[in-house]
Amino acid sequence: MDYEQYFGKRIADLKADGRYRVFADLERICGRFPVALNHRDGKTREVVVWCSNDYLGMGQRAEVLAAAHEAIDRCGAGAGGTRNISGTNHYHVLLEQELAAFNAKEAALLFTSGYVANQTTLSTLGATLPGCIIFSDALNHNSMIEGIRHGRSHKHIFKHNDPADLDRLLAAAPKDAPKVVAFESVYSMDGDIAPIAELCDVAEKHNAMTYLDEVHAVGMYGAEGSGVAERDGVRDRITIIQGTLAKAIGVVGGYIAASQACVDYIRSFGPGFIFSSSMPPATAAACLASIRYLRHHPELRVKHQERAATCKRRLSERGIPVLPSVSHIVPVMVGNASLCKQASDMLLDEYDIYVQPINYPTVPVGTERLRITPTPLHDDAQMDHLVESFCAVWDRLGIPKAGEQAKAAE
Amino acid sequence: MDYEQYFGKRIADLKADGRYRVFADLERICGRFPVALNHRDGKTREVVVWCSNDYLGMGQRAEVLAAAHEAIDRCGAGAGGTRNISGTNHYHVLLEQELAAFNAKEAALLFTSGYVANQTTLSTLGATLPGCIIFSDALNHNSMIEGIRHGRSHKHIFKHNDPADLDRLLAAAPKDAPKVVAFESVYSMDGDIAPIAELCDVAEKHNAMTYLDEVHAVGMYGAEGSGVAERDGVRDRITIIQGTLAKAIGVVGGYIAASQACVDYIRSFGPGFIFSSSMPPATAAACLASIRYLRHHPELRVKHQERAATCKRRLSERGIPVLPSVSHIVPVMVGNASLCKQASDMLLDEYDIYVQPINYPTVPVGTERLRITPTPLHDDAQMDHLVESFCAVWDRLGIPKAGEQAKAAE
Repeated sequence: MDYEQYFGKRIADLKADGRYRVFADLERICGRFPVALNHRDGKTREVVVWCSNDYLGMGQRAEVLAAAHEAIDRCGAGAGGTRNISGTNHYHVLLEQELAAFNAKEAALLFTSGYVANQTTLSTLGATLPGCIIFSDALNHNSMIEGIRHGRSHKHIFKHNDPADLDRLLAAAPKDAPKVVAFESVYSMDGDIAPIAELCDVAEKHNAMTYLDEVHAVGMYGAEGSGVAERDGVRDRITIIQGTLAKAIGVVGGYIAASQACVDYIRSFGPGFIFSSSMPPATAAACLASIRYLRHHPELRVKHQERAATCKRRLSERGIPVLPSVSHIVPVMVGNASLCKQASDMLLDEYDIYVQPINYPTVPVGTERLRITPTPLHDDAQMDHLVESFCAVWDRLGIPKAGEQAKAAE
Repeated sequence: MDYEQYFGKRIADLKADGRYRVFADLERICGRFPVALNHRDGKTREVVVWCSNDYLGMGQRAEVLAAAHEAIDRCGAGAGGTRNISGTNHYHVLLEQELAAFNAKEAALLFTSGYVANQTTLSTLGATLPGCIIFSDALNHNSMIEGIRHGRSHKHIFKHNDPADLDRLLAAAPKDAPKVVAFESVYSMDGDIAPIAELCDVAEKHNAMTYLDEVHAVGMYGAEGSGVAERDGVRDRITIIQGTLAKAIGVVGGYIAASQACVDYIRSFGPGFIFSSSMPPATAAACLASIRYLRHHPELRVKHQERAATCKRRLSERGIPVLPSVSHIVPVMVGNASLCKQASDMLLDEYDIYVQPINYPTVPVGTERLRITPTPLHDDAQMDHLVESFCAVWDRLGIPKAGEQAKAAE
């Protein structure tokens, strides 16, 4: 095989399909969130970022930055090793304690990312619980799918957010086999939310563990912001809560929170945990400051929901096809990879609005979309400009509006 | 199944085997490397860290810290998304360009960790090159093994650092199948170094790609410090060079460097890359400053090698059983998990020396060891104290000395 030729051919295929990803080269401007500089062709231009996963702008909050600066001055730039071999720093210990308390669990464990948290925890459970069967929601994130695949246990996919289908599958499984039900709270591409209590009812009926990914909910739901399970009052029914520190917390990293024994088990047997260098002390310190802030500032969550609801309402009023999201995510359907990219390019080039096109494999082919994430820091003027720009781009490119999409589907 | 009981049982088994890992709770003291505070039972005590993977102390160098501080002030604490969805920051672009130049390759790609770089790249190659066969050194790191397993391609294990065995396996494989030869330059637990040129001879003869993990060599070998392949003048013969930013670079993260087409391929198809939030701008900035410094300061590498050689010589002269390492790693054989942990505890508690015990699964059972990593910043007085303390602990615990181990093995 000519390897270079093969790589080149596959890339050419992606380009021909309109699925080749070009990364926007941004430079975030600290203190002016959601404004950033866009680097292109050797020039820079100010744009308003409307697709950040720093959902609450915490990555630029003074308390978070001060904590990072202080930890760098105290401890330096890196941790110096894996957690076991000289890489546990006191900030990791404090952050794990905080995460346990935040999630109302006995213990917590840090990972380098939410991806690694899911991949490692699910693959470790699947590979080491004898006879384990994992029941996975049909729309689970790639990191969960990869973890489940890698564990090589038996698995079943239940229909998205469907407790009845889960019940059917669990009832058909051997009674004594260990079982894990894995799902998310907020699904980030559609913006819908799982019926957690109902899924717990079914899991408990069949003595299955529950594994809940709160990645797109951490910081944003519940009185103290630990996620939808807190909002719904069902945290004690979830065996393992997983989350990220890279989205609403505003920094980077992932975690699980669970019983002491369960966390100690994953800590002791999870390769992606054992063999990875730990996060820098300053990263842990910044996360710690962010979580402490968020626990005591529910007004940020109220404002966030208002901004998202307003954005959805205003776009819908103008016929822009917003999906029926019940969360802070505002997905706008385009339905075609090439058109989606054109709309995104036009918004960026001519309207200084950055909304990344979301294409396959992140969403199914034919459901390509622009995914808007309003934050508490997007003001009315910015939202006016967003709505007008979307309407202009929709008209110029002839993208179907809400009613027209419905008609086309008939 | 009673899940809690099962987790508890497995942890109890680890404890009974002497394999339960307790993390030393450290607080690095910036500016006083290799000294750190050890937190225990609510008290702190100063210790000298002799097992850091911050091999050159770069994690505390002024230029690195200044770059991190500046990037936090400019851009904030986090990147705000995956690389594709608002998470590419200008520092990532600059760092990838620097890593490409550093490794004399066309392009480079950042990952959240070296673990994820190996896991993602190898699993993507294995899963997507039709009929791919991976040839893996018997002592490859867990991250490579997991990546190879996850890709589910055919695989063969060749004897450690053995070009003849590799040749035999490659010759037996179908001529037209895509092939990847995956190995490390420095093996971090034994401190031996691969015969890279000879392995390349064999790979080229059979038209196999080469994948070289330079994780324990980056910053430390070669005129500019990119690794052993640079030192040996064979970088152009390696298809993919993989490395970490968490060890001698002093911060956190991983990378690959290769041709433009190859990097673009992994960038476009590697799930662990696509679906992970990107590293904070300040992490990338700190790495960039560290690499730029290391490329122009070979004297740090000279001093590093001198310290390691001196440490090996001095311990050996006193009968402490140092393995025949040819690198900067100083592995001292104990050969028993419980004794290894006792020695480590005694060194920490009574001599203020921190060297973590290395037990299974990191090394095979029966080869448990203390792994010393002298840095350019460990001074003569600290080394005097290390040597005397090791001798005292060896005597007090009755651990076999070099000649005695040989006799016991006869």
